[in-house]
Amino acid sequence: MVDRKANIGVVGLAVMGSNLARNLASREGNTVAVFNRSPGRTDELVEEHPEAEFVAATTYEEFAASLSTPRTAIIMVQAGKGTDAVIDELVKVFEPGDIIVDGGNAFFKDTIRREKAVRETGINFVGAGISGGEEGALKGPSIMPGGSAEAYETLGPILASIAAIAEGEPCVTHVGTDGAGHFVKMIHNGIEYADMQLIAEAYDLIRRGTGKSPAEIADIFAEWNKGELESYLIEITAEVLRQVDAETGTPLVDVILDQAGAKGTGAWTVQTALDLGIPVSGIAEAVFARSLSSKPAQRAAASDLPGPTEAWTVDDSDGTSTDTFIEDVRLALYASKMIAYAQGFDEIVAGAEEYGWDIHKGDIAKIWRGGCIIRAQFLNRITEAYAENSDLPTLLVAPYFRDAITGAEPSWRRVVSTAATAGIPSPAFSSSLSYYDGLRADRLPASLIQGQRDFFGAHTYKRIDKEGTFHTLWSGDRTEISS
Amino acid sequence: MVDRKANIGVVGLAVMGSNLARNLASREGNTVAVFNRSPGRTDELVEEHPEAEFVAATTYEEFAASLSTPRTAIIMVQAGKGTDAVIDELVKVFEPGDIIVDGGNAFFKDTIRREKAVRETGINFVGAGISGGEEGALKGPSIMPGGSAEAYETLGPILASIAAIAEGEPCVTHVGTDGAGHFVKMIHNGIEYADMQLIAEAYDLIRRGTGKSPAEIADIFAEWNKGELESYLIEITAEVLRQVDAETGTPLVDVILDQAGAKGTGAWTVQTALDLGIPVSGIAEAVFARSLSSKPAQRAAASDLPGPTEAWTVDDSDGTSTDTFIEDVRLALYASKMIAYAQGFDEIVAGAEEYGWDIHKGDIAKIWRGGCIIRAQFLNRITEAYAENSDLPTLLVAPYFRDAITGAEPSWRRVVSTAATAGIPSPAFSSSLSYYDGLRADRLPASLIQGQRDFFGAHTYKRIDKEGTFHTLWSGDRTEISS
Repeated sequence: MVDRKANIGVVGLAVMGSNLARNLASREGNTVAVFNRSPGRTDELVEEHPEAEFVAATTYEEFAASLSTPRTAIIMVQAGKGTDAVIDELVKVFEPGDIIVDGGNAFFKDTIRREKAVRETGINFVGAGISGGEEGALKGPSIMPGGSAEAYETLGPILASIAAIAEGEPCVTHVGTDGAGHFVKMIHNGIEYADMQLIAEAYDLIRRGTGKSPAEIADIFAEWNKGELESYLIEITAEVLRQVDAETGTPLVDVILDQAGAKGTGAWTVQTALDLGIPVSGIAEAVFARSLSSKPAQRAAASDLPGPTEAWTVDDSDGTSTDTFIEDVRLALYASKMIAYAQGFDEIVAGAEEYGWDIHKGDIAKIWRGGCIIRAQFLNRITEAYAENSDLPTLLVAPYFRDAITGAEPSWRRVVSTAATAGIPSPAFSSSLSYYDGLRADRLPASLIQGQRDFFGAHTYKRIDKEGTFHTLWSGDRTEISS
Repeated sequence: MVDRKANIGVVGLAVMGSNLARNLASREGNTVAVFNRSPGRTDELVEEHPEAEFVAATTYEEFAASLSTPRTAIIMVQAGKGTDAVIDELVKVFEPGDIIVDGGNAFFKDTIRREKAVRETGINFVGAGISGGEEGALKGPSIMPGGSAEAYETLGPILASIAAIAEGEPCVTHVGTDGAGHFVKMIHNGIEYADMQLIAEAYDLIRRGTGKSPAEIADIFAEWNKGELESYLIEITAEVLRQVDAETGTPLVDVILDQAGAKGTGAWTVQTALDLGIPVSGIAEAVFARSLSSKPAQRAAASDLPGPTEAWTVDDSDGTSTDTFIEDVRLALYASKMIAYAQGFDEIVAGAEEYGWDIHKGDIAKIWRGGCIIRAQFLNRITEAYAENSDLPTLLVAPYFRDAITGAEPSWRRVVSTAATAGIPSPAFSSSLSYYDGLRADRLPASLIQGQRDFFGAHTYKRIDKEGTFHTLWSGDRTEISS
């Protein structure tokens, strides 16, 4: 038995779990209980970090006994069956009113299921998305908890104590009930995919178009990071591009195999959007670009398929075109990024409606300003936009975004057009532009698609000039009937 | 009790089911038993079609008794719980060796589950995709049955008797075990989405670029239908565009509300592709274009977002540019269509591997030549490509396709570039081109993405010059370690 009582416990002490436990222990007022399936890991952590004064437990019973009530424990194990196993054990030793938090990357539907099951025991279950990677876990992540408002009363102050601080505010808010936190974390990751792909396309276009070295392009990104694109991803892009491989003396980015991996949350975002009927084309193209990159056999076979006969570079005979092109790319990146966020927030709105969550969109943008991977200046603009009108039909029509797109749009078109001509893949840039042009179109050729569907499947159509549903007797006399 | 024995039965007599039953009855050697939950519908069908000499049953027991053994019944009810309910009833009255066919649009994972459950009773369960709409069901659909090879021995000849005939061959083949048939039907529908969206974009570009009327554009499509684009969808596009609304005297396509509906199979194709790690960007953009079109509030709000300052039209001062532009659009459509098929067949390959199906890709192309919505001349080229090399890494490198793309590629680039400049949404055209340029790229900026992932999440990367997995100590001294 243990003699000190902890106010918070962590189960699962791999790198994310230990870092979160250390973060908790470093904040005044917290005493942290720790438990790991293999006790060797617990001993190691306790030994390595005496300053944390962890309360170590070797069984779930001991872990429960070491916590003051209401007990609060954060599970930090790999998402999936491991999470269910730990929940089963905690439910046995916890009591009604206690709080179990899943801090892993669970799929939000699993969280809804788990919350429902655990609630029946009287114990609270909170699925909390935690973003920021290993360093964020240690120094201050962005935290997106779901679950009940009652559980958040106890949990909120603890999470606020370890969260990142952005402009004086902790990056945590009660997102909504049951799976809302993990849902919003999923969207965060989807936007992260899009943002990374857009940056990659910008880099590729500048490199191929101007012949600048990665180090020179690093300077460009560092410069961009001083303006409206200021963000963690732009910042680290400069760092990665500047890195030189010690072994070969060449830029690291040229030594890294160009096959991007994925861990599934990007795909979840798109799959969920398809269920909700929300077009998230920018995120989808980013996910697909990664999977395309990871098909070496196909790429090798296709490598001699024809492209433009002459290699394209910016014609800089007037000495200013390179700068103009780079500025065009910057604006195309900014415009496309706005599309990715607009689509992501549309998915949040649709998810909230489908699952009955009262999500404050401006607060979501706020808690993404610090700690997480997509942290960016820009998020203040989203908060402002929703503060002004919480029912915005799309972010793009908020004054700031409308102005920004108006300024970026001619550049954006030039970049997409150039990429198509030059044979440089720009799936996320061009998809975002097509989305934009689709959204603002007076008429879409979807009317032709409805005509085709009525022709081959009698799916019927609506008319612009009157209510009702109609069908043309295509195989008959081609008159129209009301149906 | 009934006195005649039927060799095949149909359960579910809504329009698809009745038409399929009538089709079956019209073929020599078939006697068809029919059953519907509400017997009124059965009576109606029997009365309306005495020539079919249906054997009508009013209970499942009677239905089973009316079938010769091994009993074979095709379920034609709305996919979902209704299907499970009918299966439950049939299992009670059928015997080991009998065959239950689900001819609805089931999701292939449901079919895998059902096949497994029914197989335990000794009864065969076959999920069969049926394409061709109401008319196809009546006159000859394309049929994609899964299930066991044994069941196909009995079932195959019956299905062959009612299938469409293309170049002398019935459009049916044993696709593979359990869910293979419904999987391939799903891909068929995904390709159909892409094909329809591409046609819609071609129409929109020509209309906006040349000012031609729908009737004039109908002539263009009719002309295209004589060449390599020859297909059912191109044919009916001409019909739809030529149709004039009797009430207003304007082209029907201008009267139809431009909000496209969807029934879910396109979304399934994309969701499944995401699970399988296959980029199907053309299909995804088509699905998203439909969902975007169906957001009237967003579109209204966004309708005044800025576009190009001058409305674009083809400059035809030399008298030939319009023709050149239209030919460019035709080639862009053809090239993009090849991408959609290449992506769809990649998904078939990945699905076959994941689920252990021995799918003959050339045979799939063959049975899509007739009866179904995507039937096209072009499919012979796919069959030939796989006949020559069944392990093609991508359709695009087969000689015919390589040549066709080589011929189309400059036009394709011009069209995508023009659309971006002109502000005309071309999500499927431009996404397909980006996919193509990504696939053939020597180097992709995925290496930068891997660098970013290693930076913020220690996800590690591979190198181009040696085996292993590596990590740069980004927060440390930035040396590289093997991990």
